[in-house]
Amino acid sequence: MDLCDREKNTNVRISLPAVCFVWQIAMIILFGVFIRYNEESSPFWIEHRKANNISSDIENDFYFRYPSFQDVHVMIFVGFGFLMTFLKRYSFGGVGFNFLIAAFGLQWALLMQGWFHSLDYSDGKIKIGVENLINADFCVAGCLIAYGAVLGKVSPVQLMVLTLFGITLFAVEEYIILNLIHARDAGGSMVIHTFGGYYGLSISWMLYRPNLSQSNRLQGSVYHSDVFAMIGTLFLWMFWPSFNSAITDHGDGQHRAAINTYLALASTVLTTVAISSLFQKHGKLDMVHIQNSTLAGGVAVGTAAEFMLMPYGSLIVGFCCGIISTLGYIYITPFMEKHLKIQDTCGIHNLHAMPGVIGGVVGAITAAAASEAVYGHEGLINTFDFEDAFKNMTPTRQGGHQAAGLCVAICFGVGGGIIVGCILRLPIWGDPADDNCFDDEPYWEWACEHIPSGKMTIMSHPVWLTPAPILT
Amino acid sequence: MDLCDREKNTNVRISLPAVCFVWQIAMIILFGVFIRYNEESSPFWIEHRKANNISSDIENDFYFRYPSFQDVHVMIFVGFGFLMTFLKRYSFGGVGFNFLIAAFGLQWALLMQGWFHSLDYSDGKIKIGVENLINADFCVAGCLIAYGAVLGKVSPVQLMVLTLFGITLFAVEEYIILNLIHARDAGGSMVIHTFGGYYGLSISWMLYRPNLSQSNRLQGSVYHSDVFAMIGTLFLWMFWPSFNSAITDHGDGQHRAAINTYLALASTVLTTVAISSLFQKHGKLDMVHIQNSTLAGGVAVGTAAEFMLMPYGSLIVGFCCGIISTLGYIYITPFMEKHLKIQDTCGIHNLHAMPGVIGGVVGAITAAAASEAVYGHEGLINTFDFEDAFKNMTPTRQGGHQAAGLCVAICFGVGGGIIVGCILRLPIWGDPADDNCFDDEPYWEWACEHIPSGKMTIMSHPVWLTPAPILT
Amino acid sequence: MDLCDREKNTNVRISLPAVCFVWQIAMIILFGVFIRYNEESSPFWIEHRKANNISSDIENDFYFRYPSFQDVHVMIFVGFGFLMTFLKRYSFGGVGFNFLIAAFGLQWALLMQGWFHSLDYSDGKIKIGVENLINADFCVAGCLIAYGAVLGKVSPVQLMVLTLFGITLFAVEEYIILNLIHARDAGGSMVIHTFGGYYGLSISWMLYRPNLSQSNRLQGSVYHSDVFAMIGTLFLWMFWPSFNSAITDHGDGQHRAAINTYLALASTVLTTVAISSLFQKHGKLDMVHIQNSTLAGGVAVGTAAEFMLMPYGSLIVGFCCGIISTLGYIYITPFMEKHLKIQDTCGIHNLHAMPGVIGGVVGAITAAAASEAVYGHEGLINTFDFEDAFKNMTPTRQGGHQAAGLCVAICFGVGGGIIVGCILRLPIWGDPADDNCFDDEPYWEWACEHIPSGKMTIMSHPVWLTPAPILT
Repeated sequence: MDLCDREKNTNVRISLPAVCFVWQIAMIILFGVFIRYNEESSPFWIEHRKANNISSDIENDFYFRYPSFQDVHVMIFVGFGFLMTFLKRYSFGGVGFNFLIAAFGLQWALLMQGWFHSLDYSDGKIKIGVENLINADFCVAGCLIAYGAVLGKVSPVQLMVLTLFGITLFAVEEYIILNLIHARDAGGSMVIHTFGGYYGLSISWMLYRPNLSQSNRLQGSVYHSDVFAMIGTLFLWMFWPSFNSAITDHGDGQHRAAINTYLALASTVLTTVAISSLFQKHGKLDMVHIQNSTLAGGVAVGTAAEFMLMPYGSLIVGFCCGIISTLGYIYITPFMEKHLKIQDTCGIHNLHAMPGVIGGVVGAITAAAASEAVYGHEGLINTFDFEDAFKNMTPTRQGGHQAAGLCVAICFGVGGGIIVGCILRLPIWGDPADDNCFDDEPYWEWACEHIPSGKMTIMSHPVWLTPAPILT
Repeated sequence: MDLCDREKNTNVRISLPAVCFVWQIAMIILFGVFIRYNEESSPFWIEHRKANNISSDIENDFYFRYPSFQDVHVMIFVGFGFLMTFLKRYSFGGVGFNFLIAAFGLQWALLMQGWFHSLDYSDGKIKIGVENLINADFCVAGCLIAYGAVLGKVSPVQLMVLTLFGITLFAVEEYIILNLIHARDAGGSMVIHTFGGYYGLSISWMLYRPNLSQSNRLQGSVYHSDVFAMIGTLFLWMFWPSFNSAITDHGDGQHRAAINTYLALASTVLTTVAISSLFQKHGKLDMVHIQNSTLAGGVAVGTAAEFMLMPYGSLIVGFCCGIISTLGYIYITPFMEKHLKIQDTCGIHNLHAMPGVIGGVVGAITAAAASEAVYGHEGLINTFDFEDAFKNMTPTRQGGHQAAGLCVAICFGVGGGIIVGCILRLPIWGDPADDNCFDDEPYWEWACEHIPSGKMTIMSHPVWLTPAPILT
Repeated sequence: MDLCDREKNTNVRISLPAVCFVWQIAMIILFGVFIRYNEESSPFWIEHRKANNISSDIENDFYFRYPSFQDVHVMIFVGFGFLMTFLKRYSFGGVGFNFLIAAFGLQWALLMQGWFHSLDYSDGKIKIGVENLINADFCVAGCLIAYGAVLGKVSPVQLMVLTLFGITLFAVEEYIILNLIHARDAGGSMVIHTFGGYYGLSISWMLYRPNLSQSNRLQGSVYHSDVFAMIGTLFLWMFWPSFNSAITDHGDGQHRAAINTYLALASTVLTTVAISSLFQKHGKLDMVHIQNSTLAGGVAVGTAAEFMLMPYGSLIVGFCCGIISTLGYIYITPFMEKHLKIQDTCGIHNLHAMPGVIGGVVGAITAAAASEAVYGHEGLINTFDFEDAFKNMTPTRQGGHQAAGLCVAICFGVGGGIIVGCILRLPIWGDPADDNCFDDEPYWEWACEHIPSGKMTIMSHPVWLTPAPILT
């Protein structure tokens, strides 16, 4: 009997190359029509510098933001990618599809965000520089979060569709929240994490698989896949201060955002460990919590990182998030799967959605509590951007705007996810059968035909069919 | 028979959460009372900038030090963490407990170091910025070094205690060496590595386990755990130039420290390979040496990295350390275990303690040999900080002070280690029995109950009980 | 029968330590005679700064280039190193020998490149700073590329010889291309990738092993070795913008090079996935393509990254390279092995040689098409360095010079590779027998003697002798 006999057709040989080619060619054409270098990345920079009395090349925005950009880039590709290698037989899909959709998403994000934020009305071109690259990576993060909820249950073509719509929704939502509502969201607690979390959860709800327990045998980790996942966890954890400070104001804004994030994350680790140990028999730690909940503090401090949250405020935010996120893994994820029909492979509800909402609330409170005594006159205007059309904003009103922004993020996430989920339910995308979920076999080339069949039974089953606690 | 029957109680379900919660709450309170942003990370930066005629935000210390900070951060969490994943069944504990104690330690370090170095006497607050974050990471490094000696033999609660006292001792020792004695130690050869090394060795001596050979079967690596450890090695090796230059003077100080460290490390690799090959049958290389001894040059060049060590001087330091460190693994570690009752899991004596002492000596010699001919008049004052109370220092006297600093580091390491070791011998910490050492089982949740018992014997034993040379 | 009985002597116990010691001592002497700090890394920087009216330490070249340097450093050691861990039993050799030859190579490169580019004629010394460190890492990259072709088939001593000659040839070739011919090659498409690729292929041709298929069983990956290789892939991919911008002009030059590379790489991922899926039965993806071909865009955009390639131009270059490189793995590598007697373990022809040539051609075209309308008057001079002896260059002529540079790189690669290949065929280097290829056993210490022989047969063979599809 052929091992590869499956009940559903997972052949993406036509659809995947077609989607990749068509979309990449579309990108080339749209970039050709719309995208140009901005004045800091074009050769006219020298003349621009002299004309504006800028004394040195070091004041090019590149030097303010490039180190942070590279850290964010690592978070997107290694951080998210390796965090998703924890499944015993889906490591290729975790890191590989993450790579694919991030590479596509950032191109589309440059266009979408460019139209909203970087369009030069004099010539109708989008002018890009390093800050656009960071924002494109941020935009992609929203979709990668959503991928976490459906990890192992969708085809790469579905992921491309999820990303195309996700980026589009993101750019619109971001424009509404940041520009129309004038909320501040440096680290994207609302714009990235809340949106991405609810977007993914809604999609997963639409794609509910009632009989998924059949392939439960693959929905776990082995020893070394958990160590691989720790690579992702640590790079996310370490570089989160760069994430939250990457696009904040030059000078004290970036400085303060990095400090606040550093502190919140440290605090989260301790409470995650505490709760993980407290709720297990014999006080043992659970790798799932260590891999995920330790990051919740970085999410929750995103909005307020650039504000005067104060060092102890950051610790408190991290403290609460470690507890809530870990309890989420213990109680809420099983509850959602059983009663709400939401299957959340990576637990993004605990790592992104809930901490994102907390981050939005913390941001609203911190903004409402701002005063000239704490920020200074210029500092207040500068931090909250009380300029131009928003010259008459007050901190209290700003707090209200922050809260409104949070609502928009949730609505876009839930609404967008339901619509996109409907599209993804069409039977044309080559998604795997329940039996094939969490398995690299349908989409990745194996050299499995060389295995002597006798040894196959003896060797391979105990290794990957059981949770395999002690393997190498 | 229950596989989990053990002679000693390793249940930390009460103690670990209790310690985490109590200490984290204490941190929040102390941060609330003491810690504030400094003028470069507060919104008053704009006004400060204008008042001090600083022309651009790029002169905020953030831009001088943040890239180095992030590199150091990677060394602490991925470098140290993955270096300790080499044991076949203790990878979770290696990277996970490293994560836990580093996240706790850096908070306590901000306070302890803050009281000594960053206290603003006008309002009694500690004012923090990016340099404090780097120093907190440095401080944590001392404790992670100590963890290397006791890896696999202690409970997480013991590690928290080790860290609490380690950070405290570090801050005092550092204040004495840098401020009272006025020794220079940019890369922490003395302050971090010598102290941390002897602190860990003394603790390990106090916790000597005469019957540990019983669990020898687990005190080794498997193929892929050695590859994981190489991740740690390489990130430490690559980012060591950032470590040694992170807090040196702006401009030439950081520049020179990075160059010297880069060169010393390159040289160490060659002599490590040479000695490793020379002392093995058939000239084969030993992964333990490649993972550890290649880093010794970075340790030894720490103190002198900012001085005019000269490029060839750096190569010579690296040359010697590669030889000494590798010979240490071959001869001294077994000797210490057999005759001195010091069990040193990671060989920190060869990687940190000895190279640290060499670094202190090299620093003393280089300082004593300094002259205005080599440094220039301003350069000499600037590099050695011959200002204020130390206006009349001469290079020769500075050399003496360096040597005195080294002695203080050794004393604090040995003395502190013995005291803390005594505390850790109390039978209340949930440490593992000899049989349970180097095993993740006591402290990490396994899904082991699902393994069909028959297959367990067949499958798992050869895989992890033997050194498993050829697995995947 | 002894498992370690081999037909060829792979004992390097004398030769490897001898080479390491002799060469390292030679480095120390040569560094002592020739290498000094430059004015930005010496303590005279303070006086230099004041004399030159440089307002701040931040204008030290260190702050322009150090973040990029560290990214490049990661690419060299983790990127190249882990990319070569994909073989099931040669991960130690992949990452370990990469480490060894890079650490040696960068010292020799500092000297060789220093003589050509950084010699201070006033005192006959080479003055080094951070840019020299980057260039040394670049120079090493050429040799690591060559290592990819012979991976698993040579001894460490042979690799040291390959590196010594490779660095020497590189420095001469680079001097001819950049200084005499005055071609521009910021990211080294020609100087690094074309040269390194053909150098490695020629050596592999000279070292052709007609009976190598005997050890084919080891020339493949296992599940987790492929995941390890993805660490290498991703760090190369993410940091490639830093590679191509590391030594370009301050300001817009670095900014533009980073943007172009970022875009080219994103585009490559999509076409690689498309072709990989299109050419496999059932549309499955092949890990070899994902690990390697996704990087081709970064290679091909190297020369033109600092030019006005335009964002869409970068996408087009990446688009083509993803296709060509993946097709290369499918058709050209097997063809070369069968008909041209070139065995290319990592497929460097597809990842470096072909994309490098494309990059040279793209660079020539982009340079020839340059105009003042696009670059501005000052921008054109600045970007192409039309100064001093080359004051009268025109873009068209520059295009010709670029093409000439490409030819020089190919000639040096092929010619140098043949000569060095001849040297490496001498029967004195301890290279492995065909049976021992792709096996860490000859050069790395195993604890294999402890395995109960009965279990050896049962356990280990299916695990590493078969392609082991489902292990952990």
